[in-house]
Amino acid sequence: MSVTAPQGFEAAGVAAGLKSTGKPDVAVVVNRGPRKIGAAVFTSNRAKANPIIWSQQVILDRTVEAVVLNSGGANCFTGSFGFQTTHQTAEKAAELLDVSAGDILVCSTGLIGTGDEAFRAKVLAGTEQAISELAADGGDAAAQAIMTTDTVMKTAVVSRDGWTIGGMAKGAGMLAPGLATMLVVITTDADLDALDADTALRRATGQTFDRLDSDGCMSTNDQVTLLANGASGIRPDIDDFAAALTELSDELALKLQGDAEGASHDITIRVTNAASEQEAVEVGRSVARNNLFKAAIFGNDANWGRVLAAIGTTSAQFDPYNVDVWMNGVRVCSEGGPDRPREEVDLTPRATDLLIDLQVGEAEATIRTNDLTHDYVHENSAYAS
Amino acid sequence: MSVTAPQGFEAAGVAAGLKSTGKPDVAVVVNRGPRKIGAAVFTSNRAKANPIIWSQQVILDRTVEAVVLNSGGANCFTGSFGFQTTHQTAEKAAELLDVSAGDILVCSTGLIGTGDEAFRAKVLAGTEQAISELAADGGDAAAQAIMTTDTVMKTAVVSRDGWTIGGMAKGAGMLAPGLATMLVVITTDADLDALDADTALRRATGQTFDRLDSDGCMSTNDQVTLLANGASGIRPDIDDFAAALTELSDELALKLQGDAEGASHDITIRVTNAASEQEAVEVGRSVARNNLFKAAIFGNDANWGRVLAAIGTTSAQFDPYNVDVWMNGVRVCSEGGPDRPREEVDLTPRATDLLIDLQVGEAEATIRTNDLTHDYVHENSAYAS
Repeated sequence: MSVTAPQGFEAAGVAAGLKSTGKPDVAVVVNRGPRKIGAAVFTSNRAKANPIIWSQQVILDRTVEAVVLNSGGANCFTGSFGFQTTHQTAEKAAELLDVSAGDILVCSTGLIGTGDEAFRAKVLAGTEQAISELAADGGDAAAQAIMTTDTVMKTAVVSRDGWTIGGMAKGAGMLAPGLATMLVVITTDADLDALDADTALRRATGQTFDRLDSDGCMSTNDQVTLLANGASGIRPDIDDFAAALTELSDELALKLQGDAEGASHDITIRVTNAASEQEAVEVGRSVARNNLFKAAIFGNDANWGRVLAAIGTTSAQFDPYNVDVWMNGVRVCSEGGPDRPREEVDLTPRATDLLIDLQVGEAEATIRTNDLTHDYVHENSAYAS
Repeated sequence: MSVTAPQGFEAAGVAAGLKSTGKPDVAVVVNRGPRKIGAAVFTSNRAKANPIIWSQQVILDRTVEAVVLNSGGANCFTGSFGFQTTHQTAEKAAELLDVSAGDILVCSTGLIGTGDEAFRAKVLAGTEQAISELAADGGDAAAQAIMTTDTVMKTAVVSRDGWTIGGMAKGAGMLAPGLATMLVVITTDADLDALDADTALRRATGQTFDRLDSDGCMSTNDQVTLLANGASGIRPDIDDFAAALTELSDELALKLQGDAEGASHDITIRVTNAASEQEAVEVGRSVARNNLFKAAIFGNDANWGRVLAAIGTTSAQFDPYNVDVWMNGVRVCSEGGPDRPREEVDLTPRATDLLIDLQVGEAEATIRTNDLTHDYVHENSAYAS
C-alpha cells in the first residue's frame, strides 16, 4: 500500500514510454486533505536538477497538493528547456487536479542530460494518464513506477493508535548523504503542524537516509518528501510521531542498502565511545568510503588495517594505538595491534558488522554501506545513469 | 641507475625472505658525502606506521646517512615490538656503516599488521646483506626490492649542467595524497643547503605526487625522501633545482599512475579558469574520487553528468549552468547542458583527458587518477595489503 496506506491519499503509476523496457515510469501521489502539509529535504549537491530547483520553491509555503515523479530521465543539466518541462509538468498536474501549480512537487530520476522534447511529451502525457488512474490503493503502482536499477519495489508502513505513516523509496546506487539520498515519498494521516512535520522529517532523515553511504557519490536529484493531511483526526505527540517516522525511514533505508547496485555485503559500521556523535559519524563515513576496505569485504577478507588507515584520515579524536576493531563479533584489532587472527572472521553472510571502539568518549553512531564488487563496477560502467 | 645516478651514492637490493615469492625485498641507499643533507615528506594519515614515527624524528636535524627500505610487511600497528624492530633496523645499519642510528631513515611497505619476530629477523639479516652488497651501480637493484604489486620498476634520472638527480618509486594502489603517497627515494649530487632541499622537495611533491589520486585511499606508510651530498661541487640556483626535481618527480608520478592496480585508463583531469589553484585542486580531486565517474570511464562511457555531480559536492566557486566539460577533445557539456553527443568521444585509448572549464577565474590545476575496474576490485579483494 505504501503511500496510500494512510487515509486520504491517492496514487497511480503508469508507463509513459520513458523507460526503454516499457515498464511504469511516471507516478503521482495526491493528498486529498483535509490538510495539505508538506515538508521536504533535498540533495545538498550544488549541481541540482531542474525538479530540485522547482521543488525547493514549492516547499517554501509548506503546502503540497501532490507529487509527480518520473524515472527514465533526470532532467538535470538540460538547460532552460528542461526547467520549463518541470514547470509544465506541475502546471499540467495542477490543472487536472484543480489546484495551484505552486503546490506541486516534481521529482525526476535517470540519466543526467536527458530532457529533450520527446522526454517532455512523455512526462506530460504520463502525468495526465496517471492522474486519470489515481486510486486509494495505487501506492504500489506508484512505487513501481519510480524504480530505476532497483530490483525490488521498496515500501514501508508504520501504524500507531489511529494514525498511519506510509512510504515508498527508490535508489540502488549513488547513495551518499547530503540530506536526502534518493527519491522518497512518505505520507501520513496524522494531524501535524507544518513546523512539526519539518522537524520530524529532518530528525528522521538525519538518523536514517543520511547515514546510508553506499558509494560516496552524491546525486543531483535526491529528495525526501513528507505529506500530512490530518485525515485520521488524531494529533500525535511530536516525539511519538518522529519516532514512528524514524522507524519507517529506517526500514526504507535498509531496503535501499539491501538493493544497492552490485553489492554482495550490507555493512553496518558502528562507531562507539567517540568524543561526539559528529566524530562518530565522520569516522563511520570515512570507513564507508574507503574503496580498499570495501573491496576487502567483497573478498571476505577481514582486513582491519584498512579500517585503521581510514580512521587516520579523519579529524576525530582517537589514539591509533588504543582502538579496538571487531568484525562479525571477532576482535581482530586491540590497542592498535593484531588480536584474533583475521581468518576467524566469517564474512560469508551478506550482513556484515564492523564495530570500531574509539575509547575516547561516550558518543556513538551507525553508518551503513555496501562492499565494492565486480558487479558494482559492471553496472556503473555499462549502465549510463 | 635511479638513485645511484648522481655521484657519491651507493645502493643495494636483496632477497631476505619477506616476500613469499622469494623476490628482492630489502633495499639500502647510502650517501657517501661529502654532505649528508636529508629532507622528507610523510603521509598525513594520523594512523602512522612505525617506520614513519621513527623517520619523522630522524629527519628533524636534516642529516641523513642512509635509507633502509623493505617490502613484504608494513610494520604498522604492530605495537611496541614493531617500533623496536624499526629501531633495531636503524641501529644495525648504523653499526655496519659506522654512523649514528639517528641518521638512518627506515621505510616499510606491505600488509598492515605484519611485523612479528620472523619479520624482524629477516629485515635485520636483509639489512646486513644489503649493506655488504652496496655498489655504485646498485640503484636498479634497490628499485626492484621496494616493489610490491608494482608490475614494473620505477626509476627516473634528470641531469643538468654538472649535477644530477636520480629517483626510485614504488606504489601501485592506495595512491592518494596527504603529502607523500608512496615510497620514493631521490638522490642528488647538487650542493644544497638543508632548507633549500626541504623547500624544493615540498614544492616538487606538492605539484606531482600530491596530485596523483589513484583510489582516494591514504596510506599509513608513505614517505618521499631527498638525499643531497654536494659531490658535484656545483650549487645550482634553487629555482633551477626545484624545477628539475619537479620534472623528475612528475616522471615518477606518471609511472605510478601508469602502473596503478587494475587500471585500464590513466585519467588527466585539468581544471581551468577556477577562482584559485586551491579550488581547482578541490574540483579535480572530487572528480578523481567519484566511483561512478571512474566506473563510466572504465566502460568507455563519456558520462559528463557524473563530472558535474562531483563538482557540485565541492565548495569551489562555480555556476553549474556555466561549466564546459571536454573529454578527449570533444566538448560534451557546455553551459551546464549537453553539447556534442557523448558517442563522439573515443575513450578506447588508455590516456584519457578530462578538461573542466569553470569559467570563474584564471587559476588551474591538474589531478591525475585512474578508472575503477574489475581488476582493481579483484586485486584489492584477493590481495591482502
